[in-house]
Amino acid sequence: MTGSSGNVEIRKFDGSLTKTIRDSVAVEEPLEIQVSSAAAQGSAAKSVSITMRTPGDDRELALGFLFTEGIIESADQVVSVLHCGQQAAESGLQNIIRVEIDPRVDLRLERLERHFYTTSSCGVCGKASLDALRVTGQSSLAHCQASVSARTLVKLPEKIRKRQPLFVATGGLHAAAVFGPDGEILIVREDVGRHNATDKVIGALLESGRLPGNEFGLLVSGRASFELMQKALVAGIPLLAAVGAPSSLAVQTADEFDMTLIGFLRGGTFNIYAGRQRITET
Amino acid sequence: MTGSSGNVEIRKFDGSLTKTIRDSVAVEEPLEIQVSSAAAQGSAAKSVSITMRTPGDDRELALGFLFTEGIIESADQVVSVLHCGQQAAESGLQNIIRVEIDPRVDLRLERLERHFYTTSSCGVCGKASLDALRVTGQSSLAHCQASVSARTLVKLPEKIRKRQPLFVATGGLHAAAVFGPDGEILIVREDVGRHNATDKVIGALLESGRLPGNEFGLLVSGRASFELMQKALVAGIPLLAAVGAPSSLAVQTADEFDMTLIGFLRGGTFNIYAGRQRITET
Repeated sequence: MTGSSGNVEIRKFDGSLTKTIRDSVAVEEPLEIQVSSAAAQGSAAKSVSITMRTPGDDRELALGFLFTEGIIESADQVVSVLHCGQQAAESGLQNIIRVEIDPRVDLRLERLERHFYTTSSCGVCGKASLDALRVTGQSSLAHCQASVSARTLVKLPEKIRKRQPLFVATGGLHAAAVFGPDGEILIVREDVGRHNATDKVIGALLESGRLPGNEFGLLVSGRASFELMQKALVAGIPLLAAVGAPSSLAVQTADEFDMTLIGFLRGGTFNIYAGRQRITET
Repeated sequence: MTGSSGNVEIRKFDGSLTKTIRDSVAVEEPLEIQVSSAAAQGSAAKSVSITMRTPGDDRELALGFLFTEGIIESADQVVSVLHCGQQAAESGLQNIIRVEIDPRVDLRLERLERHFYTTSSCGVCGKASLDALRVTGQSSLAHCQASVSARTLVKLPEKIRKRQPLFVATGGLHAAAVFGPDGEILIVREDVGRHNATDKVIGALLESGRLPGNEFGLLVSGRASFELMQKALVAGIPLLAAVGAPSSLAVQTADEFDMTLIGFLRGGTFNIYAGRQRITET
């Protein structure tokens, strides 16, 4: 299985078990993201993440991850992004990607340890998580005046579905998409993990010089978690819309940073959990 | 917001934006899992995980996590499981849980670093991940003769839905359930994360002395990933059924360890991706 989807032989039950058919499944493979500082030739690369992802757009995934985790602040801090290491003999996949960072950048890899959760006086809790976002320099997105109409919003899931070839083939992938105020879809990426799909679209925005994304919205399949709100916030995207339900901490994050949070965007209806002012009726 | 779900005021769009209603959302809060060895009074506790979870069944979650990560092998290696630390002042939630391990147990916390991904000669890849499971002592479940009928399987989602009070209230939770050969539901747990819901049911099996779960099946909402197959394998459960799609690596794991993998179990039909021999027609 190379690429993003593969074929397997399955037995289908639809009243009887007689049918054997070919079926597509989404590829899930680990990706190790390494960071090196270009200060010295041969300087050791540090492994900062192993994520289970769908191959494709690895470069964007790595950049989006490093950006949303606060390791890099702009694309020009990156010297190179290269697949490295031996290829996996059987699969032909390249599952290690190394990001070389400009030596002038002060690499703060300790951020990846997410120690911030436990630095607040109240111990580890949602409040501490929100405080930590403030500590790492995230501030309110109240200044983002972008708005989108309800009628534009309800059309988005169908528009995006048309640009999800892997989901259509496998039924097994999440999608994240960036859209503009008129509902035009700018970028769609797919992955077995919602957080990876989100990192991929944010990485694509970073590479094309479109961050902070103050005038954009982010649409995700599935549910809206704290982690996804955090990624949108770091990317300066003031609106997140989810096809599924939001969590309590996603709602709190939206409230705290003046973001708009839409849930259950499907079947022509949706719920506004925060930031009503960015949604117009027509 | 205390407990597993909370209320928020939302604006609903169903043609117009005039309606303001109360809506339930699933609570998402971090849980820090700490491990200490009871060797000496006051010995330092080590933080081994921070997971975003839905409060409730924290004890089972911690035990299931430590078991499926290979840190503990049985419930009797555990001296105590206690919430600790200050309560979060606003929420009243307790978000740190400390598991005290019998001092005679050789704690191999390095397993948590998942370094195994990179020890294989082919670098980091799905094949290496499967090899790593073998290295940590997981062997084929071919000896598990348990079987379940197709007609029993298709009734499971509806049965489990009836025991998902939080999902019914919020629409925002995953579920994992353990069932017996006759389709009787033994345990159901809910969480914002599928992996947490799975750890909770496995923790419950561990505490009640029912592991390895050679005669059981595991049903999960959503998709079947490598991580979930790995947890089922470590718990000795030979059958995993998912309401959604499986990934390529989930299928490979099932093939490699002679497990049964069912996907798209909904609407009275399903697909068998591996281990056909455990599914009977009637």
